[in-house]
Amino acid sequence: MDKNIEISLLFDFYGQLLSPKQHEAISLYYNDDYSLSETAEVMGITRQGVRDLVKRSEAELYEYEEKLGLYKRFEQVGESAGKIRALAKEICESQDLQAVELAKEIEALADKLYTEEA
Amino acid sequence: MDKNIEISLLFDFYGQLLSPKQHEAISLYYNDDYSLSETAEVMGITRQGVRDLVKRSEAELYEYEEKLGLYKRFEQVGESAGKIRALAKEICESQDLQAVELAKEIEALADKLYTEEA
Repeated sequence: MDKNIEISLLFDFYGQLLSPKQHEAISLYYNDDYSLSETAEVMGITRQGVRDLVKRSEAELYEYEEKLGLYKRFEQVGESAGKIRALAKEICESQDLQAVELAKEIEALADKLYTEEA
Repeated sequence: MDKNIEISLLFDFYGQLLSPKQHEAISLYYNDDYSLSETAEVMGITRQGVRDLVKRSEAELYEYEEKLGLYKRFEQVGESAGKIRALAKEICESQDLQAVELAKEIEALADKLYTEEA
């Protein structure tokens, strides 16, 4: 069973909608990078039990994203923030010191957008 | 029963997680601004039935936001986008024409952020 990087990202968005057991399994297996067997030991269930929990949780996380698309919306925010930051950096090369000051403020706000997005 | 503006906003985010009946009730009552009685007539259920559906849906929408907080995160994106736009507009007053060109690009990206947020 391959670990899927997307799952960690979707878990960050929708993890609170999973059941406590699902939440624990995904958290150990994906966020703490435990193996199936290690996760099983921590949770006191079988390796197959963990596998089932993880599979079901993955399907639910994808379903939430398919219904709500909020992760995709945030990803687009991050992309735009990156472009804004790059443009503001270019303005900082200007001889117009007031423009540079304003561009620095824009840069800081674009950085904040990244944080809000993450 | 007062209509609550927040519900329309939360419905835009989490509406797809409601049951089809709940979705229909909130859509008619909030988005189309039908009365309880009108909603009841369209749905072919009692006025009290609509009231119960709406109350339960409202509680669920608040619960989703409490768990996920995604509406709040998007609201902050919109706030930052507004500030970025205002700063870019100021840069457009500059004598440095290259800075102005870059600032116009930033403005367009900030506008796009609003759209992504909405």
